[in-house]
Amino acid sequence: MSSTKDIDALIDLMAKLPGLGPRSARRAVLHLIRKRSLLLIPLADTLQAVAETARECLNCGNVGTTDICDICTSEKRANGELCVVEDVADLWAMERSGVFKGRYHVLGGTLSALDAVGPQELRIPRLLDRVPSEGITEVILALNATIDGQTTAHYIADNLEGQVRLTSLAQGVPIGGELDYLDDGTITAAMRARKSF
Amino acid sequence: MSSTKDIDALIDLMAKLPGLGPRSARRAVLHLIRKRSLLLIPLADTLQAVAETARECLNCGNVGTTDICDICTSEKRANGELCVVEDVADLWAMERSGVFKGRYHVLGGTLSALDAVGPQELRIPRLLDRVPSEGITEVILALNATIDGQTTAHYIADNLEGQVRLTSLAQGVPIGGELDYLDDGTITAAMRARKSF
Ligand SMILES: [Zn+2]
Ligand SMILES: [Zn+2]
Repeated sequence: MSSTKDIDALIDLMAKLPGLGPRSARRAVLHLIRKRSLLLIPLADTLQAVAETARECLNCGNVGTTDICDICTSEKRANGELCVVEDVADLWAMERSGVFKGRYHVLGGTLSALDAVGPQELRIPRLLDRVPSEGITEVILALNATIDGQTTAHYIADNLEGQVRLTSLAQGVPIGGELDYLDDGTITAAMRARKSF
Repeated sequence: MSSTKDIDALIDLMAKLPGLGPRSARRAVLHLIRKRSLLLIPLADTLQAVAETARECLNCGNVGTTDICDICTSEKRANGELCVVEDVADLWAMERSGVFKGRYHVLGGTLSALDAVGPQELRIPRLLDRVPSEGITEVILALNATIDGQTTAHYIADNLEGQVRLTSLAQGVPIGGELDYLDDGTITAAMRARKSF
């Protein structure tokens, strides 16, 4: 190989990112080397900054730069509504749509018998604590329309039955669809037409 | 948006890489934050190292960590054969196949009337200098089988006519195909069956 050790190492690391394979990683690295001051150096600096500051919110699992995230500390978001999502990408998709004004709870995945993921592996115990302690009146189960997503929604609903209003996203979420793939309008429509779970 | 300034900046930078859009950039950044010690920190460090050391070879345009690259300084590669490619990704593809033992010349693109790219914008003057000064006996025009690639090959051939043997990659390169997309076996076959240009 003509490339040197650091460049090879960079290609290997880039190839580990979701959506990039060895070939696109090589293209990306050449692009970075060509755009040294415009892209390579800012990217190195910003990664360093994110490595130093980024952390998961201890309350909801959102990603931010403080132990408790901006949404969890904002009094404006304490409207009694709690939206449960699988991961942070779903929370971001929801925030981009701008339709939801309450708080979130990021599970960090779904229950899965196959992968031996039980409630303790997810943020489910914390969710069950938050509902009474934060005065939640409605839990919106915004999980993906997959089998594992719906199994997880049912598990949570069983455990919160009678304590709060339970709703789920309604029209607009296609069968087998994932929130993060939907456009903002679809998410907005699904949120507005949400139905009792 | 729930993400903070550095995280947003990181997403924007990642989205500028070839092959990544805004959505895959968000996925990549979440993946990086989750794999902080395994991926995020090594990537930040390696980018920093590459930013400090990577440069283009002043002779051939290859990417390396010295002013003159390893291939240009290796006496073993001075066998009189010079392989002309459009960009470094093509050189890497050629090196992976292992079939070529000579030196390279990376043009940095192709001639293009549409984009106003003339010989001076590419490394063509340097190529015309290298042929006599490095005792080149064969120039292999390994340009992509596109219209601009072939226009460029003809321009170079016209300027080197009578000075060296001119060849081009033969069988195996599909019409409209780009070197970097081909498997090693195809490149090896095309190199072995190269014909006079
Ligand atoms: Zn939070
Ligand atoms: Zn060189």
